[in-house]
Amino acid sequence: MNSIYDAIIVGGGVIGGSIAFQLAKRGKKVLLLEKDRLASKASSAAAGMLGAQAELDADNPLFTLASRSRGMFPALAEELKDISGIDIELVNKGMFKVALSSDQVAELKNMIRVQQGAGLEAEWLSTAEIRKTEPLLSDEIKGAMFIPNDGQVSATRLSLAFTESAAALGVDIKEFVHVSDLVTENGCVTGVVTDIGGFSSENVIVAGGAWSAFLLEKSGIRLDSYPVKGECFSVLTDRPLLEKTIFSHGCYLVPKVGGRIIVGATVKAYTFDQKVSLNGISTLIERATQLLPAIKGTELEKTWAGIRPQTGDGLPYFGEHPACKGLFIATGHYRNGILLSPITGVLIADILERKANPEWSPFRLDRSIQPLFS
Amino acid sequence: MNSIYDAIIVGGGVIGGSIAFQLAKRGKKVLLLEKDRLASKASSAAAGMLGAQAELDADNPLFTLASRSRGMFPALAEELKDISGIDIELVNKGMFKVALSSDQVAELKNMIRVQQGAGLEAEWLSTAEIRKTEPLLSDEIKGAMFIPNDGQVSATRLSLAFTESAAALGVDIKEFVHVSDLVTENGCVTGVVTDIGGFSSENVIVAGGAWSAFLLEKSGIRLDSYPVKGECFSVLTDRPLLEKTIFSHGCYLVPKVGGRIIVGATVKAYTFDQKVSLNGISTLIERATQLLPAIKGTELEKTWAGIRPQTGDGLPYFGEHPACKGLFIATGHYRNGILLSPITGVLIADILERKANPEWSPFRLDRSIQPLFS
Amino acid sequence: MNSIYDAIIVGGGVIGGSIAFQLAKRGKKVLLLEKDRLASKASSAAAGMLGAQAELDADNPLFTLASRSRGMFPALAEELKDISGIDIELVNKGMFKVALSSDQVAELKNMIRVQQGAGLEAEWLSTAEIRKTEPLLSDEIKGAMFIPNDGQVSATRLSLAFTESAAALGVDIKEFVHVSDLVTENGCVTGVVTDIGGFSSENVIVAGGAWSAFLLEKSGIRLDSYPVKGECFSVLTDRPLLEKTIFSHGCYLVPKVGGRIIVGATVKAYTFDQKVSLNGISTLIERATQLLPAIKGTELEKTWAGIRPQTGDGLPYFGEHPACKGLFIATGHYRNGILLSPITGVLIADILERKANPEWSPFRLDRSIQPLFS
Amino acid sequence: MNSIYDAIIVGGGVIGGSIAFQLAKRGKKVLLLEKDRLASKASSAAAGMLGAQAELDADNPLFTLASRSRGMFPALAEELKDISGIDIELVNKGMFKVALSSDQVAELKNMIRVQQGAGLEAEWLSTAEIRKTEPLLSDEIKGAMFIPNDGQVSATRLSLAFTESAAALGVDIKEFVHVSDLVTENGCVTGVVTDIGGFSSENVIVAGGAWSAFLLEKSGIRLDSYPVKGECFSVLTDRPLLEKTIFSHGCYLVPKVGGRIIVGATVKAYTFDQKVSLNGISTLIERATQLLPAIKGTELEKTWAGIRPQTGDGLPYFGEHPACKGLFIATGHYRNGILLSPITGVLIADILERKANPEWSPFRLDRSIQPLFS
Repeated sequence: MNSIYDAIIVGGGVIGGSIAFQLAKRGKKVLLLEKDRLASKASSAAAGMLGAQAELDADNPLFTLASRSRGMFPALAEELKDISGIDIELVNKGMFKVALSSDQVAELKNMIRVQQGAGLEAEWLSTAEIRKTEPLLSDEIKGAMFIPNDGQVSATRLSLAFTESAAALGVDIKEFVHVSDLVTENGCVTGVVTDIGGFSSENVIVAGGAWSAFLLEKSGIRLDSYPVKGECFSVLTDRPLLEKTIFSHGCYLVPKVGGRIIVGATVKAYTFDQKVSLNGISTLIERATQLLPAIKGTELEKTWAGIRPQTGDGLPYFGEHPACKGLFIATGHYRNGILLSPITGVLIADILERKANPEWSPFRLDRSIQPLFS
Repeated sequence: MNSIYDAIIVGGGVIGGSIAFQLAKRGKKVLLLEKDRLASKASSAAAGMLGAQAELDADNPLFTLASRSRGMFPALAEELKDISGIDIELVNKGMFKVALSSDQVAELKNMIRVQQGAGLEAEWLSTAEIRKTEPLLSDEIKGAMFIPNDGQVSATRLSLAFTESAAALGVDIKEFVHVSDLVTENGCVTGVVTDIGGFSSENVIVAGGAWSAFLLEKSGIRLDSYPVKGECFSVLTDRPLLEKTIFSHGCYLVPKVGGRIIVGATVKAYTFDQKVSLNGISTLIERATQLLPAIKGTELEKTWAGIRPQTGDGLPYFGEHPACKGLFIATGHYRNGILLSPITGVLIADILERKANPEWSPFRLDRSIQPLFS
Repeated sequence: MNSIYDAIIVGGGVIGGSIAFQLAKRGKKVLLLEKDRLASKASSAAAGMLGAQAELDADNPLFTLASRSRGMFPALAEELKDISGIDIELVNKGMFKVALSSDQVAELKNMIRVQQGAGLEAEWLSTAEIRKTEPLLSDEIKGAMFIPNDGQVSATRLSLAFTESAAALGVDIKEFVHVSDLVTENGCVTGVVTDIGGFSSENVIVAGGAWSAFLLEKSGIRLDSYPVKGECFSVLTDRPLLEKTIFSHGCYLVPKVGGRIIVGATVKAYTFDQKVSLNGISTLIERATQLLPAIKGTELEKTWAGIRPQTGDGLPYFGEHPACKGLFIATGHYRNGILLSPITGVLIADILERKANPEWSPFRLDRSIQPLFS
Repeated sequence: MNSIYDAIIVGGGVIGGSIAFQLAKRGKKVLLLEKDRLASKASSAAAGMLGAQAELDADNPLFTLASRSRGMFPALAEELKDISGIDIELVNKGMFKVALSSDQVAELKNMIRVQQGAGLEAEWLSTAEIRKTEPLLSDEIKGAMFIPNDGQVSATRLSLAFTESAAALGVDIKEFVHVSDLVTENGCVTGVVTDIGGFSSENVIVAGGAWSAFLLEKSGIRLDSYPVKGECFSVLTDRPLLEKTIFSHGCYLVPKVGGRIIVGATVKAYTFDQKVSLNGISTLIERATQLLPAIKGTELEKTWAGIRPQTGDGLPYFGEHPACKGLFIATGHYRNGILLSPITGVLIADILERKANPEWSPFRLDRSIQPLFS
């Protein structure tokens, strides 16, 4: 055993980084282990939308959590910039969730009504009104839900800012370390086994995204979770084509600094294959063009894919293993990992400190306990 | 003046490399100057088709030259491998020039008749016959002209093999050298001016592809030539989808080693902009899918663009400047630079040695003399 | 002629971008032409030090200009972030100019005396004092001049922020456009000739860095200027090794966000060759290790080279061509292009508007007029 | 269970590829599973030396095997080229194992005597004699053992040629598949569990290089094996600096096509970290310069690292698991994976077919059985 830590985090993506940052702020001595490079998987593949209202229904248990997490970004951006020097490129210009059919119009108008009822800002804008800020959007658009508070960040910069800030606060970070097993004693975690030796801690937090399942099987737990590939591409524009994020069924366009627009994302379940298919890109180009015809004239910059962790009921898992004290899990964020990363860091730190917090009960690990544990 | 050379070649692409190689074989002391890296522009952007019969009409003056150049490849491949160790990946499995409409069927059948009349091998195959070797081709294909002798090579490897072999035979090669002017005396070339000093030679050969025009303006010559951008992409396949090259109006698919297929190429005239447009790639994907639906399932590997030198009458320029003794030009190969590179090297070496060769008369520089020289 | 502009800028690096930004702010209609991609040469190769006091002697005419330019950065950083969303990563933690020999100690102490006399902040710190902020610096260091106001920025981000902000203010930007000639009438500029046609303007500003000379020769002017290659490398560190920039004779280390340290730079004159030599990197590693032994354990991230424009007397050229009205030049910034970019933009805009400004007189084009014009 | 195979190979590097190729030639239906991309780890990091005589002592059990494997390359190169179109760039110009001290002179002369006694070609050459083919080698070299039969190949091309040829012969290849467990029944393998489902076979071959251990732990076997990082770099030369491979204690230089020289390799045990350290590259540059001073003037092309599988006694493991019928292992090739790949493919195919072959007995898995199995 090399050393003793208050907590060991397995996974160096945006979730592991946020947890490390929060624990370090609370004075914990933390070790973060990553099997590859930091933020090399889904965290750097994300478009960085903070679509709390755009992505989630108001009656989804995740909705409140997502809204609160979204609200944490302005202060977090300053805090991370102060500590790490990294600007996470938070943009708070809002999002248009557009309708391309009368069914979608009805659906969005209903969504607005529900959200307004819950006290949230959202309104319906006609195509003419949208065009005041987005003159290049297509004629096919039949209006949009305008969500002024659904902003966006640079996913890669956010992930890096978390780990850099955590390191600055004393977290030990090791890349290219493979955690091959958990060590337990009398139903309690006591450490991990890795290819560079063992590390001791009474608290191990698994935050490995879609890869969490491989390690968790070692503990006898099989989460109802599976990988979902998402393919994206980016273009570079000579002049700004968009001011706000455009979100539609099956395609989103997120305008970034430097004339870049990120277009995402396909959905292909049950694969860890990170290849970008011709079909995926072709479909995305078609959908993006339907929304913003002028995108055809831009430069294709690059294409990539990420593997997101989805769960059976669509909710993430936050909590302590019911049969293994000190083993914590934070995964299953699917397409909302960037959005949920701030609150996840705080929640897991609270859970680890045994602070009562009813908010995370819908995300308990034992919610599907019968099929879950053998 | 740093040194005295039998010839100075301006341009380190496949044409400059072939000329350097031929001159070195004839015992000449040669200096090759390239403004960037060797083969960094159109030469490495090409798909490497040797489409003498597929690309050219039998009555085109280029046709005979192209056929002879194509015939040089098998011996050249061995020679370059012996000298440089580089395999140019010559494949001689033939090409299908496919018809997608009844007009194209008629056109191709006529083309076959003409080529057979000229003693060339070409035949019409029905879709059922094509499918014996290419079972994955689309139903939309209405038959094809089969050209058994139109092979293909790796364009990048060919270019590199020329310059490596030339270097092995004593050619001096300098990259990142900008030739800013020609030096002349009494209507004769005596050298070049570059950013690293002057170099003396009574023979200067401009083989700069689409960039040749910039230097030639210095000599008072304005070729009827212009750049044409071509965009391409490549995919990687798990299993072979094609055996032979598929050529259609507006799209070709060239199967390479390692499961790679190169798909090309768009045509955009009058630009040196090397950006890959979303529109260009989208169009190519659409056309490729029309020919080979299974390509949709492959992995998009990369996208790129090259700038090819086209001319007013579609014929390249080979020859000595009519008003400037010792200034030779070899450009305007458009989409046939790889195919024509072997014969171009020999032709220019012959011209430089003042060996009579009527073959190149259609490509004389003074063929459009009135508008050409002011 | 395609269009009429108040000014045409040739060169899309940090200098051209700054000029475009300042002219746009003054309401000018500007066209910026770049032969490659924006900021693809020296501007993105720079380490981004703002070494006004570290790089220049107090009696150098450039000193005042450099100090004033350095002082513009805080406000500029905010302005560019507001317009373009791009954070230029300005760090104002100061610089240590270290001494490795007693000669250097004497030299630096003298430099401090002169600068203090000129009212500038600079002080001598012993090695023990330096170690309070930089505990990992080598024993070989014999003290340092501490310059609290010599900060640093991200060179690439600054360049991009200038052009993005310029575009947002209405500047037309075209990449991959080759300006082959100037058009003049009666000794006055009237436009430029490019490969995509001509563009009209009574003001043409050449800001092409080391490449400026090629175009200027067209105007009959030969600046006393030459290219100087500088090679650099960057490393990635697990934990911060440095807080401040370390500057020594022949080597500097600039700590960037994300655990990156940029180490530069070699000096090789009279070449446009952008290759990184083994010798160059080997020398830099040796020098960096002499300053900061712990750097040996870091990860080598990448290596690169840039071509900086140096001049005969070491001063940049700012001004109007004495024999060609409307032709302006801004080049020769050598290693201070990033530092001088803010003031250069303002100066050139002033000169173009014929505002009297004696500050730029030492940088007049005609200062070496006899040898300059033939 | 998705399908039934004669054999499942876990690992898509040069070893897995060679085994797949040999089994396919024997008519087996094979599935090859790779957790990342094919040949993405040590197989593409190797310099491709075939140093049977240079790397191994004549009394090493591996020596005979290595010599036989080396002898298979000429025929294999043709066979792979015929099937896959890929030239593996086999060069048979021999190797100089150089001495830099009088101790090394004595050691090499002894090595020659032993090898000659075993009927192998090897001779001592003085520095003057070496210089006839390698005029640029350093004065510090005190002579060399010349090994005419130790050639070299392109490691990446060999790996790819194996898998492409295997695919052409019907092997199913799946990338990005994580094998999480073995399935056994009554002490016999019946298949594997992966993230994309299970696959059935009575024969599972683990050929995962340094990563093999992670899977093997599942079978209750702990091989005496560990990862060893090796860092390399490559340079590009304008003219050939070397004809033959130069091998010394701690550094080798392998001249490749296209003017490339690969310089390797550092040795750092017990890490899967694939980062290239500044220290590693600095050390290699120093050693390479000591052998070939002219290398200082070349262009640094790139740097990389690979993770090689070493074993406790330095011998690879070939064989069937003693307690698990149908589980075969082929790992531990350390720095000789490329050299040994041809014979490993044949050996494992023989073992799987239960063909008696005493040659592999020194490489049995149970050679260190007491500590090995718990």
